Amino acid sequence: MTGSKLYDCASATQDDYERAIQSASVAFKTWSRMGPYAKRIIFLRAADILEKYMETEAPELMSAEVSGTRHWTKINSISGVGNLREAASLVSQIKGEIMPADAPGTTVLIEREPLGVVLAISPWNAPASLTVRAIATPLICGNTVILKPSEYSPKSQDLVVRAMIDAGLPKGCLHFLPVSTERTPAITEFAVKHKLIRHVNFTGSDRVGRIIAGYAATCLKRCLLELGGKAPVIILDDANIDDAVEAVVFGSYANAGQICMSTERVLLHESIAAPFKKALLARVRGIKFGNHEEEPDVSISGMFTQSSTRRVQGLLSDAVYAGAELLCGDMTATGPNLTIMGPHVVDRVTPDMEIFQRESFGPLVCLTAFATDEEAVDLANNSEYSLSASVFSKDVMRALEIARQVRAGSCHVNNPSVYIVAGAPNGGVGGSSGYGRFGGMAGVLEFTELKIISLGKSGVKYAV
Amino acid sequence: MTGSKLYDCASATQDDYERAIQSASVAFKTWSRMGPYAKRIIFLRAADILEKYMETEAPELMSAEVSGTRHWTKINSISGVGNLREAASLVSQIKGEIMPADAPGTTVLIEREPLGVVLAISPWNAPASLTVRAIATPLICGNTVILKPSEYSPKSQDLVVRAMIDAGLPKGCLHFLPVSTERTPAITEFAVKHKLIRHVNFTGSDRVGRIIAGYAATCLKRCLLELGGKAPVIILDDANIDDAVEAVVFGSYANAGQICMSTERVLLHESIAAPFKKALLARVRGIKFGNHEEEPDVSISGMFTQSSTRRVQGLLSDAVYAGAELLCGDMTATGPNLTIMGPHVVDRVTPDMEIFQRESFGPLVCLTAFATDEEAVDLANNSEYSLSASVFSKDVMRALEIARQVRAGSCHVNNPSVYIVAGAPNGGVGGSSGYGRFGGMAGVLEFTELKIISLGKSGVKYAV
Repeated sequence: MTGSKLYDCASATQDDYERAIQSASVAFKTWSRMGPYAKRIIFLRAADILEKYMETEAPELMSAEVSGTRHWTKINSISGVGNLREAASLVSQIKGEIMPADAPGTTVLIEREPLGVVLAISPWNAPASLTVRAIATPLICGNTVILKPSEYSPKSQDLVVRAMIDAGLPKGCLHFLPVSTERTPAITEFAVKHKLIRHVNFTGSDRVGRIIAGYAATCLKRCLLELGGKAPVIILDDANIDDAVEAVVFGSYANAGQICMSTERVLLHESIAAPFKKALLARVRGIKFGNHEEEPDVSISGMFTQSSTRRVQGLLSDAVYAGAELLCGDMTATGPNLTIMGPHVVDRVTPDMEIFQRESFGPLVCLTAFATDEEAVDLANNSEYSLSASVFSKDVMRALEIARQVRAGSCHVNNPSVYIVAGAPNGGVGGSSGYGRFGGMAGVLEFTELKIISLGKSGVKYAV
Repeated sequence: MTGSKLYDCASATQDDYERAIQSASVAFKTWSRMGPYAKRIIFLRAADILEKYMETEAPELMSAEVSGTRHWTKINSISGVGNLREAASLVSQIKGEIMPADAPGTTVLIEREPLGVVLAISPWNAPASLTVRAIATPLICGNTVILKPSEYSPKSQDLVVRAMIDAGLPKGCLHFLPVSTERTPAITEFAVKHKLIRHVNFTGSDRVGRIIAGYAATCLKRCLLELGGKAPVIILDDANIDDAVEAVVFGSYANAGQICMSTERVLLHESIAAPFKKALLARVRGIKFGNHEEEPDVSISGMFTQSSTRRVQGLLSDAVYAGAELLCGDMTATGPNLTIMGPHVVDRVTPDMEIFQRESFGPLVCLTAFATDEEAVDLANNSEYSLSASVFSKDVMRALEIARQVRAGSCHVNNPSVYIVAGAPNGGVGGSSGYGRFGGMAGVLEFTELKIISLGKSGVKYAV
């Protein structure tokens, strides 16, 4: 946020990655065969240790490194620790099956096997929970992991690694290799294409997601990509307006809008547009913003970097130029590095505007009116993104009907678009939000492969 | 096989694909909401119809179009009809879940939704079963399908489409669009990248698989690729030699070795190499080969095209030049188009030879000796492919230990590498065999997406 140097951090080289991958490949041989209960103990212990770090070191570290307010650090911490305990719970659920076999006396086993060494690339914006997510299910499934943190938040992400190591994760199972911005492109290509890397998970921008998918395609390797979002919240004419306002405010402005599930677009039934806007503006004007390092109780602090400010200002001025109306916010940025912006509400946004299509990842929300449920669905689906969404209505059957038509990995009813359930399969359904699922059993399916092992009997003759 | 023209077939154009995709997208709206029991009836009816076609039209058609012997047509038919009935059985198994929710009074649903329009590209070598596989699970999950058949077998594959249509599949749900060899590259790119195509499944060569994965990566679209194989069969010192010989002969020579799971490499414990070879050669010498259209009882008939012959001959002569020994077969090809080759057994094959690494897709098997179980696993895994494998041993625990270490989607114990179980999740574990699973519930997971739908309650307040 401030743009000033916090500390020096060594950058791993390609040779370091090669050594780490080889080491992880050796560790895989024993880790993949360790019994479930021993694994569970390590994860439960790691959760307790991380919980302590989150109370002691994390607030200051995350405040400085990723501009995290206390509230965001807390949400992030609860979710990260919860993900570790969720992973611990999965260990006894990684089950195979016995299939019915046509030939009497034979047996067909379908086993669920770990993949080998997994590459995990996780971002800065939720350094505890998203780092845990990138490594926990892979590890619990028996894989070993090479973790490349964001070049902007190695220390915050290292808390998770330290918790795992302190909890007794065997040597070689998890390698943490921060890389400088300059070296990141070459090392990412090297690691994704490495023969011993069997799977890649990446949480970050759709721009980088496409590059990683391309590398993975050349070597026919599976990957899990959780990329951006442009979450729509549909507010029907019979919605409870107070509930909708509350959810939109939380969804739009938590962590200054820097969450992949952040509410970016509000689709408003025309008949309730006026009262909704009035209530929204009243609530938004009460939001405190400023430098959280000086005023710890602000809800919106500085965005990540100055380029975030420029992106948000660019989208806003483009929208106003194209006919949108700024109901709240004046596009100015303050603070030591000009990264602090107040909450913005942009009205009369249309799908042809860049602000409707491009992820802002900032403290702004767009309003667009609609007349029919069908139009609302079309507007929601008029996007390259497919991560999260919400519908507000007192008629749950009507809301469900819409939720099922919205193209998204999550579509909540009367809940914010930023909604986290431990073990729920978060992720996009293709396009710029990516694909694949980290959470719960869906994560287990992602980080294991099925192997058919039929057991035959003697004396069978085959006609060729 | 004969290289002569059988019939003229119109080739679809890019415009035809565009129209078909649009039509399938419209049909999706109703098909995706059709109830499970109505869908099941259509599939069961289609299975009965296809079964009739398989007895009436298929033998002659497949004999001429894909050089299928009667026996192969029968295997293919049983598997194709079985796959339709398996899909019918899945319709009531496509279930969602209710997750535990932290906030009392709220509910978290995880629904399993169809994807939309799916592109299916299926090959010539098993025109009934692989065509069914490419379309049945996608359709039963509620998707609509664009089917691009092999340019070499549209009529055989059309039997499956006709069965579905005759059974009452609604208009627009399945489009069958054969494409000429010349137009295939451009139309494949167009269709894979089409905005309304949500998923691509492809069964075919790893060369084309890589191209398709690359196109899919550019638009962040999921795909399922079932590509080549180089199946190893490991024969341990305590194996039942007669059982192993029987399985190797079936695995290597069925359909002239033109099956992705065909046994291509036999890894022999040195202590039983001599008696195994003796028994294998005695059995192989009894295999009848020739033109199945003249002699219907041959086990091995002509390969697919003359380029198949050249590929197999090239691999064989390269191997002999590099020091391998031909124990059976003389590399000659006969028949009207020089596509008929007898069964070949190549001994003293080492991993550095091309014949050990490259898929032959022909009537040959390579023998390589090993001394320890570890060496056997290393030899088996010394391959870019990862589709199928087998281990022979009277000690099932020892065989299981090896089966779990072999990198493959299937590793059978005392069964051939060509082993089909309806509903079992066939597929590779990355690299040149591709990834993803067609069969049973694994196929349902492939052709659906999870959607989180939380149901919130009124009056909740959020701190931003």
